[in-house]
Amino acid sequence: MRKLRLEEIPRTAPDQVTEQVRHPISVVVDNVRSIYNVGSIFRTSDAAMVEHLFLTGYTGTPKHRGLRKTALGAEKTVRWSHHQKPQEALRRLREAGYTIAALEITDQPTATDAVPMEAFPLALIVGNEVDGVQEPLIEEADLALELPQFGSKHSLNVAVAYGIAIYDIVRRYRSLTSSEIPPAPRDLI
Amino acid sequence: MRKLRLEEIPRTAPDQVTEQVRHPISVVVDNVRSIYNVGSIFRTSDAAMVEHLFLTGYTGTPKHRGLRKTALGAEKTVRWSHHQKPQEALRRLREAGYTIAALEITDQPTATDAVPMEAFPLALIVGNEVDGVQEPLIEEADLALELPQFGSKHSLNVAVAYGIAIYDIVRRYRSLTSSEIPPAPRDLI
Repeated sequence: MRKLRLEEIPRTAPDQVTEQVRHPISVVVDNVRSIYNVGSIFRTSDAAMVEHLFLTGYTGTPKHRGLRKTALGAEKTVRWSHHQKPQEALRRLREAGYTIAALEITDQPTATDAVPMEAFPLALIVGNEVDGVQEPLIEEADLALELPQFGSKHSLNVAVAYGIAIYDIVRRYRSLTSSEIPPAPRDLI
Repeated sequence: MRKLRLEEIPRTAPDQVTEQVRHPISVVVDNVRSIYNVGSIFRTSDAAMVEHLFLTGYTGTPKHRGLRKTALGAEKTVRWSHHQKPQEALRRLREAGYTIAALEITDQPTATDAVPMEAFPLALIVGNEVDGVQEPLIEEADLALELPQFGSKHSLNVAVAYGIAIYDIVRRYRSLTSSEIPPAPRDLI
């Protein structure tokens, strides 16, 4: 078994990524306090080929130097926009035909690897490091997605939880047969 | 749909976690530079109920204040030990009957959600943020696990990649039927 050298690993050139068809999965990153978590979310979103990141509330944007340092270039390949009000992002997502899912612990949990096939295109809301997704956004969500946690603590780091959830969601989308694939969502921005 | 209050979420009390049966999955965290990444790995390991963390090389330990700040108590519920040489950790794992898997991009990839059933008990090696798992450890590994990456960048953050991989591995283990479950591994430490 041999580790591959960097130049041996197939990757799309950054200037071609913007032309590629993305997964019909978008993300609302609401009130995430740490710019390093946002940077990490950008890297994961590049790897997962998500459609669009809506940075809302006080979530930092790529204008912040600390984010660019953590995102390592992913801020150039991932489409994003900032909206002070998360409701504005949700309105656009609804209009484009998205199902809204919150990554939060609720009384009606759906496992991240059991997202219903008809939920695509899907938008995932992630929230603040301590408080999670805020109540008014839970009320607007169609689904609440939850990760099993077997230990004593109540939460994973937000960027880690996002990574696990989005990889499950992308895998679920990619398992759809061609007849199950929904029509492409309308333009978001 | 209603968000659960903290006290409504079922979790094992920290002083009872040490008594619980863990998944027969251990982790070697070798030469991870950032203490925040190690802290995040502790939180994820609590949630995933891994058996033991081997912190090797210059990977920081819970003696470091910055780690305790990021791990948020998980350093008390997750069993760990430090070994200057990662080979010492691998020797103990081999003796206890573990299969060794490296989270690394190689010429013989196995998907994290397709770990062979006979690979349990399993030890996962994660490596440095920039260089990944070092060559001598790849040579000792039985498997190399890889996450699909659809974008232009070559790597996820190490704590995020670990989270995605370990959740896949735990799910795979939990899907084993009782006749497939291997005998419990021998004591590691």
